[in-house]
Amino acid sequence: MNYRYSKRLDSFSSSAVREILKLTQRKSIISFAGGLPAEEHFPVAAIGEAFQRVLAAGNKALQYGLTEGYLPLRESICKWMARKGTKVTPDDMLLTTGSQQAIDLLTRIYIDPGDVILVEKPTYLSALQVFRSYGAVLVSVDTDEDGMVLDDLAAKLKEHRPKLVYVIPTFSNPTGKAWSLERRQGVLAQCRAADALILEDDPYGELKFGDASVTYPSLFSLDQHPQGSCVVYTSTFSKTAAPALRTGWVMADPDIIRHMARAKQAADLHSSSLDQQILHQLMEHYDLEGHIEFVRKEYEARMRQMAELLSEQQWPGVTWNEPKGGMFFWLELPESVDSAKLLQTAVDLGVAFVPGVSFFADGTGHNTMRLNFTHNDFDGTIVGMQRLNQAMESVLVK
Amino acid sequence: MNYRYSKRLDSFSSSAVREILKLTQRKSIISFAGGLPAEEHFPVAAIGEAFQRVLAAGNKALQYGLTEGYLPLRESICKWMARKGTKVTPDDMLLTTGSQQAIDLLTRIYIDPGDVILVEKPTYLSALQVFRSYGAVLVSVDTDEDGMVLDDLAAKLKEHRPKLVYVIPTFSNPTGKAWSLERRQGVLAQCRAADALILEDDPYGELKFGDASVTYPSLFSLDQHPQGSCVVYTSTFSKTAAPALRTGWVMADPDIIRHMARAKQAADLHSSSLDQQILHQLMEHYDLEGHIEFVRKEYEARMRQMAELLSEQQWPGVTWNEPKGGMFFWLELPESVDSAKLLQTAVDLGVAFVPGVSFFADGTGHNTMRLNFTHNDFDGTIVGMQRLNQAMESVLVK
Repeated sequence: MNYRYSKRLDSFSSSAVREILKLTQRKSIISFAGGLPAEEHFPVAAIGEAFQRVLAAGNKALQYGLTEGYLPLRESICKWMARKGTKVTPDDMLLTTGSQQAIDLLTRIYIDPGDVILVEKPTYLSALQVFRSYGAVLVSVDTDEDGMVLDDLAAKLKEHRPKLVYVIPTFSNPTGKAWSLERRQGVLAQCRAADALILEDDPYGELKFGDASVTYPSLFSLDQHPQGSCVVYTSTFSKTAAPALRTGWVMADPDIIRHMARAKQAADLHSSSLDQQILHQLMEHYDLEGHIEFVRKEYEARMRQMAELLSEQQWPGVTWNEPKGGMFFWLELPESVDSAKLLQTAVDLGVAFVPGVSFFADGTGHNTMRLNFTHNDFDGTIVGMQRLNQAMESVLVK
Repeated sequence: MNYRYSKRLDSFSSSAVREILKLTQRKSIISFAGGLPAEEHFPVAAIGEAFQRVLAAGNKALQYGLTEGYLPLRESICKWMARKGTKVTPDDMLLTTGSQQAIDLLTRIYIDPGDVILVEKPTYLSALQVFRSYGAVLVSVDTDEDGMVLDDLAAKLKEHRPKLVYVIPTFSNPTGKAWSLERRQGVLAQCRAADALILEDDPYGELKFGDASVTYPSLFSLDQHPQGSCVVYTSTFSKTAAPALRTGWVMADPDIIRHMARAKQAADLHSSSLDQQILHQLMEHYDLEGHIEFVRKEYEARMRQMAELLSEQQWPGVTWNEPKGGMFFWLELPESVDSAKLLQTAVDLGVAFVPGVSFFADGTGHNTMRLNFTHNDFDGTIVGMQRLNQAMESVLVK
């Protein structure tokens, strides 16, 4: 049998994340690679109680559900967003299998082969993979500590007339940066003027460190929404409740949501409604807000520990900033270092990270790397950093 | 904001199934429309126990999982398939969000715009929607009571050089037919010779009625498998355990599985691993085989009740056959009747069905309809058939 695959097959090359998830299953490896939450803090008992309530409601809980997702959960999320100052209704919302699926469905209904998508430099690697699989042309926009560089964005909007601009303004994956309010407003105004739809990916917004009075409003909330909004917003319960429940949501103009729902019907009919019902019970009968606050503090402590360990290393020519939230440190190494090669040495020594090159749409960034600080406990992080230091010594000139 | 949707948007027109799932939420309607299992027979207690076992295994149960799916469940399915005479390993298998996602992922890695897919006439409407969304050209192959008509298949393989042939050989949706062994072998031989990959969709194979000694081997099991197989096989737990757990699986040559897994990584990273773990516990610690046998008998009784009621009606010019398994009766009405118009009358009278035209790739079949017999209890079916009879009287000349 001669298999005649489609041309888009090449876009599904195995990604770093994929191989990483396999690596992390080996117990001898301390992994700073995957973006995994700390499983010892999952609200297991609360999820157990939530499940009991779901089953107690009767057999109908196990029947087929709506493509748009379980209505009471959409209502709970609307209340949740309202407390944060964002007004949406269930009709402006679709539940997805993680926010990854929201990225896929929007691309499916919005992008034709050859269409340009602007992305941050660097950005989330699995979004790049989705965009490429639909034949999009990816153009990187420069970023600095405050977010997308507005001059560069203006030039690229003008030159490429992109249909879509993909951004992670709040605690970026991979860099941990948070955009300033001025940049948020600037990007919004420019994209609206250029008829470029913004996909705002916000998996980490709840994981904010430092001064509690500093807030980062989403682009979606800054826009007039949801009717006619130029922002499609997606988030997930994977980082705040538990990844195994694979539930994300997307909010946008109801016209966009309706089209995404039809694409989702073809893609998988609907996501797990058992998971959606469990999350609904969790939102209504559990202090999810308090749980997130607990996890947030724990992650901030882990971030500070890793910051201290990084400071102690004094690796020559290696620079990094303290992340303002999220799950990752982002390191720039000397030009001479190829972090993909470094990874091989590191894994031999029993530690893993993600080489940065995968996060660059333009193939640069060979001398960068991403370190996760949320998954390992303090002891694990100490041992992992010792191993990483050994690996670094093999490539850095002291 | 001027939304600039992709060209493929048109392929996601709202389908009949979608509107039906909404209709069935109205309590006043007795629905023979959706392909819903009988929720009063879901193994709720067993699923509750399975969930407790999953949580008892520790917090890791709620962490991110593999794109390929939870390995112990893949192993359990392999054992299950082995008992039915089909030998596969976990590497030949991918877990999906229902078998709907298996159809989507295979199309994504296999079909370029303009490629031809052969389908049965009629066939599962949501598969047609997926194929169209990837720009496939759909060509219908004639079917009779024994399956695909081999002469017509031969002619169309020769004329169109299709990449893919999509079939539901065992208790078809919508017709309830089961192919004869001769047709299975004939289709397999012809497709192999023509390098046409077969997608065998088997959601209903476990729901067999009548003589227990009659068996219907899957095309996949009749082929040399899995290496080099010309059959990709998909099935689901939605009809045997519960739809809310949204878990299907696909078996094929490991090369195809590897490519589908990469496409799945982009699509949603992985399906609910909570659901997969629950199903694994269900397969290992519950008599799922016995449960299926119980449900099968119950469905057969419901089918016979509807067959009796249909016989009593004596609608002039309306023909149907007793389904050999699955969930549906398939009715052919006189040429003069448009079943889509009839549906409007029927809904006004409080009963729903699916007009047949959606199941035809070539736009024919306006005078056909599909009736589900698994979801309603005996009393509901009696009332529903009375209402349907009223609707029929308005269009049939007695």
